[in-house]
Amino acid sequence: MTKEQIPYKIYLEEDEMPKAWYNLRADMINKPAPLIHPGTHQPMTLEELSPVFCEELCKQELNNTDPFIEIPQEIRDFYKMYRPSPLIRAYCLEEKLGTPAKIYYKFEGNNTSGSHKLNSAIAQAYYAKKQGLKGVTTETGAGQWGTALSMACSYFDLDCKVFMVKVSYEQKPFRREVMRTYGASVTPSPSETTQIGKKILEAHPGTTGSLGCAISEAVEVATSTPGYRYVLGSVLNQVLLHQSIIGLETKAALDKYGIKPDMIIGCAGGGSNLGGLIAPFMGEKIKGNADYRIIAVEPQSCPSFTRGKYAYDFADTGMVCPLAKMYTLGSNFIPAPNHAGGLRYHGMSPVLSQLYDDGLMEAIAVPQTEVFAAAEEFARVEGILPAPESSHAIKVALDEAKKCVETGEEKTIVFGLTGTGYFDMVAYEKYHNGVMDDYIPTDEELEKYFATLPPVE
Amino acid sequence: MTKEQIPYKIYLEEDEMPKAWYNLRADMINKPAPLIHPGTHQPMTLEELSPVFCEELCKQELNNTDPFIEIPQEIRDFYKMYRPSPLIRAYCLEEKLGTPAKIYYKFEGNNTSGSHKLNSAIAQAYYAKKQGLKGVTTETGAGQWGTALSMACSYFDLDCKVFMVKVSYEQKPFRREVMRTYGASVTPSPSETTQIGKKILEAHPGTTGSLGCAISEAVEVATSTPGYRYVLGSVLNQVLLHQSIIGLETKAALDKYGIKPDMIIGCAGGGSNLGGLIAPFMGEKIKGNADYRIIAVEPQSCPSFTRGKYAYDFADTGMVCPLAKMYTLGSNFIPAPNHAGGLRYHGMSPVLSQLYDDGLMEAIAVPQTEVFAAAEEFARVEGILPAPESSHAIKVALDEAKKCVETGEEKTIVFGLTGTGYFDMVAYEKYHNGVMDDYIPTDEELEKYFATLPPVE
Repeated sequence: MTKEQIPYKIYLEEDEMPKAWYNLRADMINKPAPLIHPGTHQPMTLEELSPVFCEELCKQELNNTDPFIEIPQEIRDFYKMYRPSPLIRAYCLEEKLGTPAKIYYKFEGNNTSGSHKLNSAIAQAYYAKKQGLKGVTTETGAGQWGTALSMACSYFDLDCKVFMVKVSYEQKPFRREVMRTYGASVTPSPSETTQIGKKILEAHPGTTGSLGCAISEAVEVATSTPGYRYVLGSVLNQVLLHQSIIGLETKAALDKYGIKPDMIIGCAGGGSNLGGLIAPFMGEKIKGNADYRIIAVEPQSCPSFTRGKYAYDFADTGMVCPLAKMYTLGSNFIPAPNHAGGLRYHGMSPVLSQLYDDGLMEAIAVPQTEVFAAAEEFARVEGILPAPESSHAIKVALDEAKKCVETGEEKTIVFGLTGTGYFDMVAYEKYHNGVMDDYIPTDEELEKYFATLPPVE
Repeated sequence: MTKEQIPYKIYLEEDEMPKAWYNLRADMINKPAPLIHPGTHQPMTLEELSPVFCEELCKQELNNTDPFIEIPQEIRDFYKMYRPSPLIRAYCLEEKLGTPAKIYYKFEGNNTSGSHKLNSAIAQAYYAKKQGLKGVTTETGAGQWGTALSMACSYFDLDCKVFMVKVSYEQKPFRREVMRTYGASVTPSPSETTQIGKKILEAHPGTTGSLGCAISEAVEVATSTPGYRYVLGSVLNQVLLHQSIIGLETKAALDKYGIKPDMIIGCAGGGSNLGGLIAPFMGEKIKGNADYRIIAVEPQSCPSFTRGKYAYDFADTGMVCPLAKMYTLGSNFIPAPNHAGGLRYHGMSPVLSQLYDDGLMEAIAVPQTEVFAAAEEFARVEGILPAPESSHAIKVALDEAKKCVETGEEKTIVFGLTGTGYFDMVAYEKYHNGVMDDYIPTDEELEKYFATLPPVE
């Protein structure tokens, strides 16, 4: 089809937007391993999860049977503020590369949170409000999730307490101010406001914090404050469920023009974007109705899929959360300080971990300097300044499109562009100034972290 | 019409996008006063303008007769990367305010430059390339124009030299890095690289620069370097012509649903956004086919429309540019340092100045703390974090919508949301911390600046 037939940006009409999320777990042959209790090692029950998460979200977390879960009207109304997001045909990039490949990307950065995180934030805020809660707590690292959640809470008039990794709090004051604009309270973590925070500060005075530590503080406040629950922006089954809106819209847009992708590429940190993007495609693949290459891209400096162990592990440093079976580098793993490219979480969504273990998807680890080079190459022709996280997917999409130049194959490549890089210019500056280098953890280092995995059968 | 009939976001189809810009001057009864030569005080000719601006752009600058000028296919292809921009129905805001008013805004922030500036940047870069030039020079203050131009130049493989007001260069390193990502060279102004820069540095050692000074440096480099021309992001007739795409799309989207606005509101600095947004509506108004209230909103600390003089003035501090007849505060006027809200230019587009003088539009000056309060009120329900500049229009739109609560009138309000505030969080932080105050220049101060106006009859 020609440019006249397929527009630069495919927008669904509002009445073509999905009315239900797709729960891939219902169609998985091997279900993801359940969350287990850190003490008893038994699967977590609804009763055990309810003090931490909103009740409806606990049900979604445990639901491995219903393939579709209706999106409440209030959430669909909110989605209409910034969705459907465009599926963009990268005509300019194709021309620049001289590739016969057809490149499409689903752009989730056209909302103020700057990323796809808002898709789940609004759902989680809605269920919290519906349960009559006063507020929610969470952690944020780079700030995309915290921003999304503060927007969602402001919309439903819920209190929002964000624990922000101290180093980000200090280095990203702008992210903090966006959250404050939306009325959230933002506390640098570790803080003196929680028991676990105090303990960590005593043991490690002057620490600049970590995501695992901020999670522990947020969970403590949620479980010790009446009317509050904890919410999380990735890893969990419920989050992948909400993010399926990305994949459903992508598939609907492609179907509208009769386009069948050869490969679907997404970046993977905790897995929220990737899990959402691939959901309906993976569903078809599992049922044998279609065959797609599905590729997860992760940083070489935090390679949970490609070099991690598939094992039960802690989700947080404070070890207060349930254990999850996932590809993990060990809950104490923190990428080297020179790693600027996001996707820093030590583990990976249990759903994606199971699919990867079943051989239904591939994973590639890429060095950060090549990621930023790809980001710049993309930005200059497609006009969008991508987030470093998203640029991992760009890097592999470009590589695949360049292969087609050599082979002459007209492959159809779809990738997820999860967000914008406006708040990541410090990293771009490092790249421009040639002071960014690549770090690959040694096997010895990884072994040290693997040794801290909890002893579960 | 109901929510089911009018969507949250009205997107035109690609084939409904304008194929020609609308040149309002052709329909103006009193034409805007011509640019005149600073020495002879005679209208500038094509020959005199050509060493400074690209030839095709000079023709557009002087064209007061053709109502439509075709948009070249190459520019239309680029527009498709980020246009049509959505016309958004502010259902959430209306509900929050409990107003019977119907509020629409045209959102121009959904591209990496973060604003409407790209609409003219790509046109100016195209004509420079077509003329076989090597590159262009420009100035930037807050950085929106510089970012847009560097994106445009990167697309057409043109060199781009940006003179960035030194205080912004230092306080907005992220803006600088975005421009570098797009391959532009960015020089803090005043600099040692130009004669005028050296002169200013000698006279005012340690100065942090001004827009007028950066313009002078950029013009000097353009006119003294073979293969270069100067480009400007506002004020000029050609810029308003390119920006008419905003108004044309807005009108087409409204017409599609049979909506007739009662008022059209836009922020006004140099006039590029406002002039573009109102163009087709003003054209109808001039012809007597419709009556709209058209409202320019400017900051109280830089009140060119509401307190300026309508007179010939210099466009730049170095007095190297042609003189323009406009509402002006005097070319040495710089808003007080506490002014964080953008729209800092001392003058106003000659087209808009003439329309205002003819009584065809209104102007309102607003204090910056109220602008930021309106920005926050808007962000919390509509999800978009607005630029301080755009928030001037939001402030007046909110005021008008609140009046309708009292009167019960179902007015249709359309305003221009020119861009996002991601790079303005320092200003938001000041507002949150309660350290932002309002400044209104005294009559005595203004008289001092008026005294520097050049003596042109």
